[in-house]
Amino acid sequence: MKLRLKRIGIDTARENVAFLDDDDLISHALGLHPLDRIEISANGQSIRAVLNIVEGSIVQAGTIGLSNAAFNKLGVSDNSYVDVAPTESPASLDLLHKKMAGRELTSNDYAKIIDDIVQGRYSKVELTAFVVSMTISGLSDDEITWLTETMIQSGDQLHFGSTIVADKHSIGGVPGNRTTPIVTSIAAAAGLLIPKTSSRSVTSPSGTADTIETLMDVELPAQRIYDVVREENGCLVWGGAVNLAPPDDLIIQVEHALNIDAEGLMISSILAKKKAAGATHVILDIPVGHGTKAETTEKGEHLKQKFQQLGLRLGLNIRVLLTDGSQPIGNGIGPALEANDVIKLLANDPEAPVDLREKSLYLAGELLELTGKSKPGQGRSLAQQILASGKALEKFEKIRKLQGRHEIPPLGSHSLDVLAEKHGQVRTIDNQIISRTAQLAGAPHNPGAGVYLAKHVNDFLDQGQLLLRIYAESDEALTFAKRYWAENASAAIVMS
Amino acid sequence: MKLRLKRIGIDTARENVAFLDDDDLISHALGLHPLDRIEISANGQSIRAVLNIVEGSIVQAGTIGLSNAAFNKLGVSDNSYVDVAPTESPASLDLLHKKMAGRELTSNDYAKIIDDIVQGRYSKVELTAFVVSMTISGLSDDEITWLTETMIQSGDQLHFGSTIVADKHSIGGVPGNRTTPIVTSIAAAAGLLIPKTSSRSVTSPSGTADTIETLMDVELPAQRIYDVVREENGCLVWGGAVNLAPPDDLIIQVEHALNIDAEGLMISSILAKKKAAGATHVILDIPVGHGTKAETTEKGEHLKQKFQQLGLRLGLNIRVLLTDGSQPIGNGIGPALEANDVIKLLANDPEAPVDLREKSLYLAGELLELTGKSKPGQGRSLAQQILASGKALEKFEKIRKLQGRHEIPPLGSHSLDVLAEKHGQVRTIDNQIISRTAQLAGAPHNPGAGVYLAKHVNDFLDQGQLLLRIYAESDEALTFAKRYWAENASAAIVMS
Repeated sequence: MKLRLKRIGIDTARENVAFLDDDDLISHALGLHPLDRIEISANGQSIRAVLNIVEGSIVQAGTIGLSNAAFNKLGVSDNSYVDVAPTESPASLDLLHKKMAGRELTSNDYAKIIDDIVQGRYSKVELTAFVVSMTISGLSDDEITWLTETMIQSGDQLHFGSTIVADKHSIGGVPGNRTTPIVTSIAAAAGLLIPKTSSRSVTSPSGTADTIETLMDVELPAQRIYDVVREENGCLVWGGAVNLAPPDDLIIQVEHALNIDAEGLMISSILAKKKAAGATHVILDIPVGHGTKAETTEKGEHLKQKFQQLGLRLGLNIRVLLTDGSQPIGNGIGPALEANDVIKLLANDPEAPVDLREKSLYLAGELLELTGKSKPGQGRSLAQQILASGKALEKFEKIRKLQGRHEIPPLGSHSLDVLAEKHGQVRTIDNQIISRTAQLAGAPHNPGAGVYLAKHVNDFLDQGQLLLRIYAESDEALTFAKRYWAENASAAIVMS
Repeated sequence: MKLRLKRIGIDTARENVAFLDDDDLISHALGLHPLDRIEISANGQSIRAVLNIVEGSIVQAGTIGLSNAAFNKLGVSDNSYVDVAPTESPASLDLLHKKMAGRELTSNDYAKIIDDIVQGRYSKVELTAFVVSMTISGLSDDEITWLTETMIQSGDQLHFGSTIVADKHSIGGVPGNRTTPIVTSIAAAAGLLIPKTSSRSVTSPSGTADTIETLMDVELPAQRIYDVVREENGCLVWGGAVNLAPPDDLIIQVEHALNIDAEGLMISSILAKKKAAGATHVILDIPVGHGTKAETTEKGEHLKQKFQQLGLRLGLNIRVLLTDGSQPIGNGIGPALEANDVIKLLANDPEAPVDLREKSLYLAGELLELTGKSKPGQGRSLAQQILASGKALEKFEKIRKLQGRHEIPPLGSHSLDVLAEKHGQVRTIDNQIISRTAQLAGAPHNPGAGVYLAKHVNDFLDQGQLLLRIYAESDEALTFAKRYWAENASAAIVMS
C-alpha cells in the first residue's frame, strides 16, 4: 500500500492531518472516510493522522498529502514512498474513559496519555476530551505531580549545573505586565543565574517573548542559550524554540478555544515549564482581580498554597506573591509599545511608567532574597540600586547584543485618540476590553499595533485630555479596533 | 475586507474550515492564527469557520478557500466576494461551562446549544466538549426530553397525516442484524403505514441504508418519500437524505472517535430521529450481549424502562424488546452479503438464515400487535402468514421498483475461506472481531466486501468444514483483513 508523500503546506496548528484524493484506490480499498485515523510509515518512522478526503488537484490519486505538523513529525522527504494503513484509536483512550468515570489516574496512566499526545496520536477530539475530563473531574495533588513529571520528561530539559537557577513567572490576564526583562536584567546584574524562557501570546495582545522579540532574537537553540547564560548569567528567550514540556501548548490551545482553565492543568503547566527550563528558585506573581486567574484574594491565597505545596513535592523553591491585577500595568499594550516602556524604565527615564517600575522592583527584590543574594528585607533596595546605577540596562544591552539586537519597530501609522469626555477621575479600567482592542488593532502579529494607555485608576483628567491611543499598521485593522471600542468604551474605562 | 471565495474541495466531514494564504494581508491585519475563528458573510448569509493557514498554491492571497461543508452552508457561488471578520467563541460556550460545573441545563439552554451546532458555530473542539460533558455529568429525564425536542425542531420533520405511523429501530452492535427490510415489507403488506428511514454505517460494516442501497435507491427527497408511502404504505430510505435531527450525526461522530456512548445522548438520538420521521408507534429492539449497548440483562431492562418513560413524555408509543445480541445474525455481514440474505428470506428460500427469519417475524408480530393490526398473541402468526404467502416479497419489490431498482452487486472476487481446524461445536462468536474483519475487507464502501458466516453458536462442524468466508474487492483489502484475522481468529470463534 505505497503512496507518494507530498507536503502540501497546510498549517493545522499541530494537528496531524492527511489528505487523500476521493478517487484514490487505496482509500476505497481501505474503506476510509473523512476523519478516520490512518498510520503513515516509512524508514521505520510512523505517525498517525486524521484523514481528510479531497477532490480536485490538491493531491493526485497515488499521492498522500500531509499537513505541516504531520510532515515534519514523519521526517521523510517530499516524494518519498510511504505505507498507509488504517489504525485504531490511541491506546490511552481507555484511560480517558477511566478519568471520565471519575477515577484517579496513576503515574503510569499519565505517562501513556502524554506519550500519545507527544507522538501526535491525539486529534483535537481526544485532546479536548482529555482537557474537559480533567476540568470536570479535577486533579488530586498526586495527579498534578505525576502529570507534571511526565510533561517534563516528554520534552527537552535545560541543565545549568548550578544549585541556584533563578526564574520568575507572572500568571496572565493583566495587559502590559512586562516585568520579565527588568527583573531578569537586575537579577543577572546581581550575579544570579537566570536563564529566562518566556512564551508567546496565546490569548493576549503580546506575550513576553513577542515583546522581547522587538528588541532581540528570541528563537535560540539550546546551545546558544547555554552560551549566552555562561557569558552574561541570563538570557531572554522564547521557550518554544527549545522543546520544553511540549504537550503543554496543545493543552493550552484547547483551553483557550473553550475559555476554560482547569486549576490542576494550569499548575502543572507552569511548574513543568519552569522545571524543564532548569529552574530551582522561582518567584511566582499571581495578579488578583477581575478577569485574571485569581478573581478574589481567597482564590489567590488558595492558589498560593497549592503552588508552594506542589513546588516542594517537585523540588522547586517557590515564593508566591499576590499582586494587584485589577488594571493594566505600564502604558504600552502590544509588542513595540511595551518594549518602549521597558527601555525607558531600564534607562531611568522619568517618563517610564511608575507602576511597572514598582512591581518589577518588588519581584526582583523578592527573588534576590529567595536566592540569598540579599538579606531578608533588603532585596528591594538592592534591586533599586542596581537599576538606578545603570547596571541593569548595561546587562540588558549585553544580553541583547549577544542574542542578536533588533531595533524596536515604529508604532503603527494609523491611530485613534480617545479623549476624556468630561473632567473627572478614573475609577476602573477593564483588562479584557483593553486587551481585545489591542488585539483587534493587530497586536501581537503587527508589532507596532496596540494600545497606549495614558492614564491609570485614580488619575485625574480634564475634559479633552488623552485617555488612550489605539495604534494599528493598517486602516482595516484600525477599523476593527474602532468598531469594537465604540461598542465597549463605556465599560472599558469608568470615570467619576 | 473583501476576499474572493473559492471552493477547494476538501471534505472535513462537516467541520467548517477556512483556508487563507500565509501571505494574505487580511490575515496579517486581523492578526489571525491557525485555528482562530472567523466569520464569513455575503448576501446576508454568514457562517463561522475555523482557520487553517496555507502556503503555496492551494489558495492565493486575496482569496479564501472553504471546506465543502462550509461552502455549502454559506450557499454563495464560487468566485463571489465575501466579507471576513474575526469572531468570538459561540455564545452557548457559557452553557457548556454550566454543564461542566455539574448543573442541569434548561430547555432554552439546549435550544441555544443545538442552534450553535446546526449553524456550524461549533468546531470539533466545542462539539467534543459538549459530548464529554454530557457523558461525565449525565442527563436528567427532563434534559433528555428538552434535548430531544430541540433536536427534532432543528431539522426537517416528516408528516404523514395518520394517527398510526409505524416504525422499528434496532440498536447497533450486532453484525448482520438486517431485520428492517423484512419487518417493513410485512408491516406495509399488512396495511400499516411504515415510512422507514435508516442510517448508514458509522462504525459497522454496513448500515441498513448501505445494505438497502444495493437493492434500490435510498437517497429520496421528502416529496418522493411521500409519493412512495402514499402508493405502497411503506418505503426504505436513507434518513440522511432528509434533514432529520441534523446535530445527531455530528454528536455520533465524536462519540465514535472517543468510543463513548452516553446513555442520555443515545436515547435522545434515537427518539429524535423516530419522531422527526413522523413515527407514532415504535418497536425498539435492544440486543443484549457482549459488545452491544446493553452488555447485561440488567442494563437492558434499565434502558427499556428509560425508553418507555421518555417515549411517553414525547408522545411516542414505544414497545421495547430485549433480544439476543451475543452473536451475529444471518449469514451475510457487508452490504451485498446482507442483501442476499434479505432476498432469500423474503422469497421463502429454504436456505435463508433461520435466526434472521425468526427475529424478523418476532419484531414484525410485535409491531402488528402494538398498532392493533393483530390481536394480542397473534402478531407473529399474522406476520408469518404474510411472509409465507409471498405478499411481503411482493410489497418489497413494489417499493424497490418505485424507489428505483438496483441489482445486488457481485460479491468481491478476492476471498479467503476459514475452515474448522477440528471437529467440534461452536461455543462463541465475537461480534466485534467479525465486524472489524468485514470492515478491513472493505465493507461498506465496497458493497461486495464482507464476511459470510456459515455457522452460528451451537452448530457442529467437522474438521475442514467452512466456518466463514471473507470477501474483498481488491487484493490489498483482503490482505488487511487476513492480517487482522490471523491475529484475532482464536478469540473470534471459540469451539469445543
